[in-house]
Amino acid sequence: MMVLHSSQDITVRFSETDAMGVVWHGNYLKFFEDARDKLTEVHGLSHLEIYRKGYFTPIVKTELTYKASILYGDQVRVHAWLERHDSAKIIFRYEVINLTTNQLTTEGMTMQVFMQVSDRTLELIKPAFYEVWENEQPWTEK
Amino acid sequence: MMVLHSSQDITVRFSETDAMGVVWHGNYLKFFEDARDKLTEVHGLSHLEIYRKGYFTPIVKTELTYKASILYGDQVRVHAWLERHDSAKIIFRYEVINLTTNQLTTEGMTMQVFMQVSDRTLELIKPAFYEVWENEQPWTEK
Amino acid sequence: MMVLHSSQDITVRFSETDAMGVVWHGNYLKFFEDARDKLTEVHGLSHLEIYRKGYFTPIVKTELTYKASILYGDQVRVHAWLERHDSAKIIFRYEVINLTTNQLTTEGMTMQVFMQVSDRTLELIKPAFYEVWENEQPWTEK
Amino acid sequence: MMVLHSSQDITVRFSETDAMGVVWHGNYLKFFEDARDKLTEVHGLSHLEIYRKGYFTPIVKTELTYKASILYGDQVRVHAWLERHDSAKIIFRYEVINLTTNQLTTEGMTMQVFMQVSDRTLELIKPAFYEVWENEQPWTEK
Repeated sequence: MMVLHSSQDITVRFSETDAMGVVWHGNYLKFFEDARDKLTEVHGLSHLEIYRKGYFTPIVKTELTYKASILYGDQVRVHAWLERHDSAKIIFRYEVINLTTNQLTTEGMTMQVFMQVSDRTLELIKPAFYEVWENEQPWTEK
Repeated sequence: MMVLHSSQDITVRFSETDAMGVVWHGNYLKFFEDARDKLTEVHGLSHLEIYRKGYFTPIVKTELTYKASILYGDQVRVHAWLERHDSAKIIFRYEVINLTTNQLTTEGMTMQVFMQVSDRTLELIKPAFYEVWENEQPWTEK
Repeated sequence: MMVLHSSQDITVRFSETDAMGVVWHGNYLKFFEDARDKLTEVHGLSHLEIYRKGYFTPIVKTELTYKASILYGDQVRVHAWLERHDSAKIIFRYEVINLTTNQLTTEGMTMQVFMQVSDRTLELIKPAFYEVWENEQPWTEK
Repeated sequence: MMVLHSSQDITVRFSETDAMGVVWHGNYLKFFEDARDKLTEVHGLSHLEIYRKGYFTPIVKTELTYKASILYGDQVRVHAWLERHDSAKIIFRYEVINLTTNQLTTEGMTMQVFMQVSDRTLELIKPAFYEVWENEQPWTEK
């Protein structure tokens, strides 16, 4: 699988913990978003850029597996890998690392599709601008 | 002061607690929103209704005072009072009651203004539709 | 598969929408929580009840598939089905229905495990209290 | 007034925007938290440090005034000033600057008190450790 990789360090907010004293499970989707935005920003393909091209990229699928917890005050790093696919789908894989405990806490996946801003219809083939962008990226084997 | 009153019972979500085991202080603004929406819905003036009249009503000021905590599992009631004012401002007062402990946990205030959807300009005098609506409500003294 | 079913109606908060004008994808995990809590409460097995028995039930896996959107103001119903399994896992399936548009918006799954409060170790076989509880429930075929 | 100052740059999350296309008003309390944590961390007085000394510092009052909006993608800087007071209160003032539009978007205040972890009673005079800490800080006039 050819991928683009990026990582983003996160400072956990107190408001993101729950009464069990750890990060609430739903908040990891925010950490995924942080890493995804970092990757697309580094590679010149932000949400706003995509919007200007006439597309939304709504999320149609998410999967998360939780292996260890994060406490308030722990240092956290989120890795994101964008996969290269033939289909008109944007698939990211994620790993959230608790740097304080040196544990892999969470693994996940998000899938996005291309939707036209003009009429909110789903795009079944890759938009041309995205294919051009893909061809310019420094993909590596994973 | 002439007011309209409404109350809304709330079920606290686990995700709304924090690592101190209580509702995180910022989440009370969501409870205020619940009570505000209940009141305006009961009296036929929802956000959507206001939007159709050509206005947003953004919040320009909030104040909260915290007196006691809410634990996950506690029963909660939020009271909201809309005040009647001459100026083009929508002012609500709130009280959040922990029914489980019978304590007043939080008091607060929100102030909204009228902004035209068309050009996002601030409306300095009360929109006519709002004045009509005010005149139809069963205000009581508080 | 033998299941227990429950449903919970939700009022979408304005704070739960995003700049695309729809419910932000991560907030559906809160709706799942609402339906899960409703089911366990109806059947006498709340988080607090489980805690008193000496267990946490942390989430170890979530999956969501998004098929349609929810706008602010839409009426929403969340269905939850608890599945009966031999393993020491609590598996719920969910469907979120937009009653305003009559569309299935989101399907999902959450998996929880039993963890001892005393030492945070994972319980590999079903706790006795849970088995007793299971035997008392009105399971139906799905 | 003698103060300590710190600032923290923020990347707005898509999940923090609402259907009006701007940051939801309650989320500014998270930005305040970021700036507050930055300041206390820089000056060696994190939540965890305070906890080890035997205290919580729950928020008892918040005030926010909203003057302009923040869009997704805007660059944001949050300034925090800790004020020096004789009473056993921790008072911060905040300003949120939209660097993209060069506007002051939000001003605010939070007040915290000292509560003993052991019995959750309120501390009416400044804890000794806090007074020692205050005496070591590089306060400036504001």
